[in-house]
Formats: sequence, C-alpha cells, structure tokens
Amino acid sequence: MNREQLIEAVRSQMPEKRWLHTQGVIDTAVQLANEFGADPGKADLAAILHDYCKYWPIQEQARIISEHDLPQDLLDYNKELWHSHAGAYIAQTRFGIDDEAILDAIRYHTSGREHMTMLEKVVCLADYIEPGRDFPGVDKIRELSRISLDQALIAGFDTTIGFLLSQGKLIYPLTIAARNNLLREGKAVDKTLLEKE
Amino acid sequence: MNREQLIEAVRSQMPEKRWLHTQGVIDTAVQLANEFGADPGKADLAAILHDYCKYWPIQEQARIISEHDLPQDLLDYNKELWHSHAGAYIAQTRFGIDDEAILDAIRYHTSGREHMTMLEKVVCLADYIEPGRDFPGVDKIRELSRISLDQALIAGFDTTIGFLLSQGKLIYPLTIAARNNLLREGKAVDKTLLEKE
Repeated sequence: MNREQLIEAVRSQMPEKRWLHTQGVIDTAVQLANEFGADPGKADLAAILHDYCKYWPIQEQARIISEHDLPQDLLDYNKELWHSHAGAYIAQTRFGIDDEAILDAIRYHTSGREHMTMLEKVVCLADYIEPGRDFPGVDKIRELSRISLDQALIAGFDTTIGFLLSQGKLIYPLTIAARNNLLREGKAVDKTLLEKE
Repeated sequence: MNREQLIEAVRSQMPEKRWLHTQGVIDTAVQLANEFGADPGKADLAAILHDYCKYWPIQEQARIISEHDLPQDLLDYNKELWHSHAGAYIAQTRFGIDDEAILDAIRYHTSGREHMTMLEKVVCLADYIEPGRDFPGVDKIRELSRISLDQALIAGFDTTIGFLLSQGKLIYPLTIAARNNLLREGKAVDKTLLEKE
C-alpha cells in the first residue's frame, strides 16, 4: 500500500473536518521533525495514522484495548485517550507498521509519557498546534514552538490538564509524569548552562 | 505534656502569622470533624501539630526524610511537601503520638492521597479554608464545604494543581491520585443514587 492509498484508507475512517485536522498534523509534524531533528518520513507516517480510530465506536476502541496487550488502566480514564493505543494496534496489525518508534508516536500522541523521543514530541505537539486548532492558548504554544519544542509541549500539557481541571475530569497520571519529566529535563539543561558560565 | 504545653511548643516553632493560621486550622478541623463524623479530639491534635516543621531549615526537613523510612521521592518534588512528612515523624518521636490515624492526617495534609480517611480529609480541607486563608477561589471551596467534604477537597486540589501549572512547577503524583480517587468515589455515589431511583 503506497502513501496515497494509506491516506485514502485513513480519510475513509473520519468526517471531513477531522481529515482536515489530520492533514494539518501531517504538515506540522513533518515541519517540526525537520526543525528539531526527528525523522520526517516517520513523522509523516505516524501523523497520517494518529487518529485512525478516533471516530470508531467507543466500544470497539475499548474492545481492542481489553483484548490485547495494551495498558488496561486506560479503560479507567477518559475515553479520549483510547484511540491512540487502539490506533497503534491497528497500524501494526492492519497496515503492517512494525517500527516501534512510529507506533510509540501514535500510542502516546494524546497522553505523552516520560522520556519521550523527539518523534513522539513532534507528533504530540503537531496535534496541539496544527493550523486548524483554535483553543484558548494555542497561539502561545505556537509561539513557544519556535523557540523550544519542550517548552511548547509543556504548555500543551498545561492546557490539557487545565481543561480537565475545569471540567471536573480525571487526569491520566502519565500526562503528569510527561510534564514533570520535561520540566526536570529543562531544569537540568538550565543547570548545565549555568555551570558553563 | 498537656494540650496547653503542646500548643506552646508548636507556637515557638513558627512566626506569629503562621501560628494564627494553625489556630484557624485547629478550629476549622474540629468543626469539620463534628460535621462530617471524624474524631474531633484527633482532628484537634493533628491540626495543632500539622505545621510543626514548616519553618524549620529546609535542609533539616530533607535530612529527616532521607535518614528515616519516609517516601524518598518527596525529595524530587516541591519543598512545600516536606514539612508534612517531617512533621509526622517529629510528632511521633518527639511528642510520642503513636496513633497512625493522627500521624497520617499530618503526613498527607499537603499532598492528599488515595483513599483518604475522614480525619485526613478534615485536616487537609481545614488547611485550605481556615478563616485566615485568602487565595483566589477560597470562598468557593468554603461554600462547597457546607455541602460536600469531597467536592470541597477536589476544589482545593484543583487550586493547588492550577497554581503549580501557572508557576511551571512539578505536580506531585499523589495529589493527582487523590483528586482522581475523590472524583471516582463521587461518581460511584452518583451511580448508586441513580440506581435507586
């Protein structure tokens, strides 16, 4: 299956509006990959597939998680997290993607996690800032993305956590771990810079 | 050592302003304990001692944590968390408090934790809403405390997490676990109510 065929396969799984979002994520992820030194081909493929299961019936997403070796604790948290892991499973089994780096970028594009690879960061951030996104604070994250991938990603997680707080929704612990980890790595970098002065 | 002597011992450890805060927590914790069915005598004792180490040199608080069987991961998070566990240790070793319920109420008064006892909730909430507190949102938490201890506590954790987000500070995972747990228990109650209809 070539790229065109894959794109048609993805497009058929979602309403046109979500496909436009996916196109935005593809463009932005490839651009960020080139800027920050991730593999643009892998960013392209992960971005194409990242929302493959987003509009599948929620019971089907839950079934994929519960019947396979996926993190079962997801089922105790917000449904919005499920399509990422279900999507990585489908990318592997239906489309034969066996590159774990690409699969992880799909798996963790919603929650993030500790010690994210550059590819994971690029796809996760692209999902926040692609041109079609329009939520309070998105311009600040776009601005930060021109300076620091990590700072932009922290700001992205901040909006997610803030939104969950305001909605009285559960917060997935891995997102907190991802943010804490990025803050710590940032401070470690700062410290190194200070030591060099 | 009687209650008066204990109060003098605590008062000598902190500036007058913080002692006024402690008095507020004592009054509020006892009141909440009477309202929500925790032991008012234990709430009184835990509240008296909860900030005992708050103004100790931060290195001393860290030493107590690192040299004894206290959660070592605290040292990787905000210093504001340390006095609670150091305080419980001192309550036990210096003042001979051996009631684990009281010690836990001191230990978890800042972070919260999963499956908090009524006593832990009462002391933690009193620390948020005692009359001297004046932060954005405190009146909403006071109002909620007249309806639901758990909803008020969730709102308290929300302000803490929101503050840490706004300050770019680490978020201690146990606070997220505490909030998630209270939200889940609330939903479980709601579900029971619905089933009864």
